[in-house]
Amino acid sequence: MLVNKKAIHIEWGDCDPLGIVYYPRYFEFFDACTDDLFEKAGLPMTKLLETYGIAGIPMVETRAVFTASSAFGDNVTIESCVARWGITSFSVEHKLFKDNILAVECFEKRVWVVRSPDPAKRIVSRPIPKEVSDKFS
Amino acid sequence: MLVNKKAIHIEWGDCDPLGIVYYPRYFEFFDACTDDLFEKAGLPMTKLLETYGIAGIPMVETRAVFTASSAFGDNVTIESCVARWGITSFSVEHKLFKDNILAVECFEKRVWVVRSPDPAKRIVSRPIPKEVSDKFS
Amino acid sequence: MLVNKKAIHIEWGDCDPLGIVYYPRYFEFFDACTDDLFEKAGLPMTKLLETYGIAGIPMVETRAVFTASSAFGDNVTIESCVARWGITSFSVEHKLFKDNILAVECFEKRVWVVRSPDPAKRIVSRPIPKEVSDKFS
Amino acid sequence: MLVNKKAIHIEWGDCDPLGIVYYPRYFEFFDACTDDLFEKAGLPMTKLLETYGIAGIPMVETRAVFTASSAFGDNVTIESCVARWGITSFSVEHKLFKDNILAVECFEKRVWVVRSPDPAKRIVSRPIPKEVSDKFS
Repeated sequence: MLVNKKAIHIEWGDCDPLGIVYYPRYFEFFDACTDDLFEKAGLPMTKLLETYGIAGIPMVETRAVFTASSAFGDNVTIESCVARWGITSFSVEHKLFKDNILAVECFEKRVWVVRSPDPAKRIVSRPIPKEVSDKFS
Repeated sequence: MLVNKKAIHIEWGDCDPLGIVYYPRYFEFFDACTDDLFEKAGLPMTKLLETYGIAGIPMVETRAVFTASSAFGDNVTIESCVARWGITSFSVEHKLFKDNILAVECFEKRVWVVRSPDPAKRIVSRPIPKEVSDKFS
Repeated sequence: MLVNKKAIHIEWGDCDPLGIVYYPRYFEFFDACTDDLFEKAGLPMTKLLETYGIAGIPMVETRAVFTASSAFGDNVTIESCVARWGITSFSVEHKLFKDNILAVECFEKRVWVVRSPDPAKRIVSRPIPKEVSDKFS
Repeated sequence: MLVNKKAIHIEWGDCDPLGIVYYPRYFEFFDACTDDLFEKAGLPMTKLLETYGIAGIPMVETRAVFTASSAFGDNVTIESCVARWGITSFSVEHKLFKDNILAVECFEKRVWVVRSPDPAKRIVSRPIPKEVSDKFS
């Protein structure tokens, strides 16, 4: 199974008045990690949008567990993989390590969508091509 | 049970290239809603920090389910309440409505912490005073 | 001259480890204030995009002077107006007050753009309709 | 004169509905670049805070000129240097290049501050030690 590792340096602007990462920022990190994972699979997101005519891979569910905080100046590593492929959706798992200790775990369920011809709906799901999921094994 | 309602206007900067809210922004909205809920209970966060000597109420787990997207210019409403009080932690639930339709649901588990005397740990949990939880019933 | 006033409550997530507003956030505030100013002029941005076929009013230059900081829980007010109309660009001024003291001043130069037929350029400037600028006097 | 170069990959969450970088994000990039510049000078910000007992180097004025936009997936480079040292303040300049073309220029004036003993003021400026400025030449 394809695993991507991304190093992140915690910036001043990532942190809150407690001096630790403001938790919505973690979701920005994880979102960038999912992009990196696709790039590692040979499917950079810009190419994905063009090749398959999709509008993106928006989130339908996400969950994170925070067991240790990170602070300004820390260097952390995030390991990401696709844990499951469904028909039109897939699950991504991220593990954020600080000093080799698991600090945050995140689960994402994303969906493969195109722009809807119905402007009220904006986006609509489509089956994920097998050649896409094959690249992550 | 105390419920807070907060109206939010979706700004340009909240939205991504799909034209819909970039999902980490929802967590910023929900975090502000938890603050508002405490304020409605007569416990604005700044007062909370002073009165009880806590360092904050950081997140230990959060989960969100996104069933409908919101776009630039939309007006949404978020209803928030404390669903459960534990010894040192509590659960908050948020429901985001757009045009009276439930668009996002969020669950939070937060912990009542003080600054740790051990600088390596930064923060440590403490029992939640009953007078605090009483204000949300 | 049309002036918009917008009240902003400083959230936890707006603040940095010093406990004061992380300065890039001010630009998010000011951007939302420009939107509000247009809405007050009867030209909400979504309508502007539709009616005039523009792609937006992106920033070409901005400058801010910070004379006093704001912190978590503060309530501030921002007064915004268009200071000058050019052919394809216009200048917006924002003054942020805390307790009636001027804390931040911001100047913006924005341009009226449509999507470019040349994909490499993305956007291209166009003359601002007089009926638009007339609404701000 | 010490110059720092930082490579930045434009993420989905950096971009707005036009598909280009939401301009407040540039200020987050530049803020991280100033940190990197100090780190390159042998003064990582965390060490700076400890060694000199300062509370930070907050912004008192910043100005940016945007001549070309960047989009999701772009790789840009930011060159940063201290252009001038004053008694208690200093100026930083950033140049953001995309494909070797200057796309954004930024000027910052920052001040060397300690926490004020007067809680109403929060922070107060102090003279910058010569050994600090010497490291940037």
